[in-house]
Amino acid sequence: MIQEIGAGRFQNQFRQCSPRSGDYVIAFSGKEKRDAAVLVEAGQSAIVYPTVGQLKEHAQVNEEDLCYLFSLDEDAFYLWKNWDEMPNASEEWEYRSIRMFRTAEPMELCFAGMTAYHLYVWYRNNRYCGYCGAQNEFGQKERTMVCPSCGHLHFPKICPAVIVAVRNGDSLMTSRYAGREYKGVALLAGFCEIGETPEETVAREVREEVGIRVKNITYFGSQPWGYDRNLLLGYYCDLDGNADIMIDRQELETAGWVKRADIAENKNLRSLTATMIEAFRRGEI
Amino acid sequence: MIQEIGAGRFQNQFRQCSPRSGDYVIAFSGKEKRDAAVLVEAGQSAIVYPTVGQLKEHAQVNEEDLCYLFSLDEDAFYLWKNWDEMPNASEEWEYRSIRMFRTAEPMELCFAGMTAYHLYVWYRNNRYCGYCGAQNEFGQKERTMVCPSCGHLHFPKICPAVIVAVRNGDSLMTSRYAGREYKGVALLAGFCEIGETPEETVAREVREEVGIRVKNITYFGSQPWGYDRNLLLGYYCDLDGNADIMIDRQELETAGWVKRADIAENKNLRSLTATMIEAFRRGEI
Repeated sequence: MIQEIGAGRFQNQFRQCSPRSGDYVIAFSGKEKRDAAVLVEAGQSAIVYPTVGQLKEHAQVNEEDLCYLFSLDEDAFYLWKNWDEMPNASEEWEYRSIRMFRTAEPMELCFAGMTAYHLYVWYRNNRYCGYCGAQNEFGQKERTMVCPSCGHLHFPKICPAVIVAVRNGDSLMTSRYAGREYKGVALLAGFCEIGETPEETVAREVREEVGIRVKNITYFGSQPWGYDRNLLLGYYCDLDGNADIMIDRQELETAGWVKRADIAENKNLRSLTATMIEAFRRGEI
Repeated sequence: MIQEIGAGRFQNQFRQCSPRSGDYVIAFSGKEKRDAAVLVEAGQSAIVYPTVGQLKEHAQVNEEDLCYLFSLDEDAFYLWKNWDEMPNASEEWEYRSIRMFRTAEPMELCFAGMTAYHLYVWYRNNRYCGYCGAQNEFGQKERTMVCPSCGHLHFPKICPAVIVAVRNGDSLMTSRYAGREYKGVALLAGFCEIGETPEETVAREVREEVGIRVKNITYFGSQPWGYDRNLLLGYYCDLDGNADIMIDRQELETAGWVKRADIAENKNLRSLTATMIEAFRRGEI
């Protein structure tokens, strides 16, 4: 999966530090997910983020415009946080849709981009204190937004959600979500509600989306990135009872049982969904 | 565990409805966790929440003061959301610390109280729009806070975190957290960071808190409530290498290996921690 970029490479711990010329800058434009784009070198199919030094040749850069994100080995990444004055696109640097992270190379920079996007949306959505309405400040010691008025500390937000592979003998329940850009085959999925175990989310989402019951709910693995800033927890389970489905057309464009033999091999295993479908195809789950 | 209150009993789906006289009201006081208290019938060791009808005999209650939370079977629960005018305590109704949820009866009302507390803190922390600073309104169709100015939808926030049972042959790593009210034996634990799988959180937290490495990280189960509004994911794992520990004294008061035979039986298995320790004591994990 996309996060499998080598043990010890990804260093997520927040630290107080000043950007150096060779550190990387990740700058996003767009408020909504469908418009979200990231600044990369123009005309390259592979992802090249600007370094602080390169960006200075191109735009006015102050230390206050940048917020430390994380490191991959020795490479430090900073987020462009001056939302009111973003670097302009040019012949050399362009804003490209974040959808490229599903397929672009190198994969570790896709992972860096997705994780930076998660943090970017969280920072932007916490510019003001939800408790008292005052303007927050960037935390200096921890990865927090701090309210100077009421003292409230805002920590990064992660949305736990489940991906569900429902088996029925040698068939798998697959679906296509309605109203999404992504048109590939998917599994059933949904966000955990407060008060629910992920296993209860699995049973509820399957019931709501396709009207069937499941048993033997078993954890498969997890994926810590997603366009909806989620932590995806993958579970497989078995049909319990009647296999006839009732599709929730508000959520799903289509859904149905697919025979193992009719599933095409997929070599792009960046996502938990693709990994779980492929594991079923191979008879591993 | 506390959430195991019977299949189908807990109905978490948000709905538009008006409070009826026999529905229950959960009212919290206190901004911080250490001060948090809930209105219950005075002089009763078991938890008794007021019904809407009972509360009206005691305090001024308008429909706008109440927000639908969830149901247990036919019993609907509402949150008191008029933060500026809370019902007063009296001879009949008192605010009691939410710490009682660890031990009080009946357990299903402890679960209801913990889940209501999670939603209460989320609602209070999202009175203002983090994106633009305007005052949010309560969503009518979904469980959301809605910004009337920029249109931002704020969804409930859940913090994924891990509980870790590290095994070393017939010994288990247990700890006591520093600076907490709770003084019982605990396992190691920590919040997931953005970009991390829960399994990576497990390895990082163990390394940070006691300086050892682990292998064979395996999912055990989950607990969807906690005083820190978390979704706890329980993992067990095995010591990998040297058993000597280096305790992070900022986080932990103490930590160390405890022999299976030296663990006392615990019949209060409300928490994932207690359940995992007891499963180890019995030789099940």
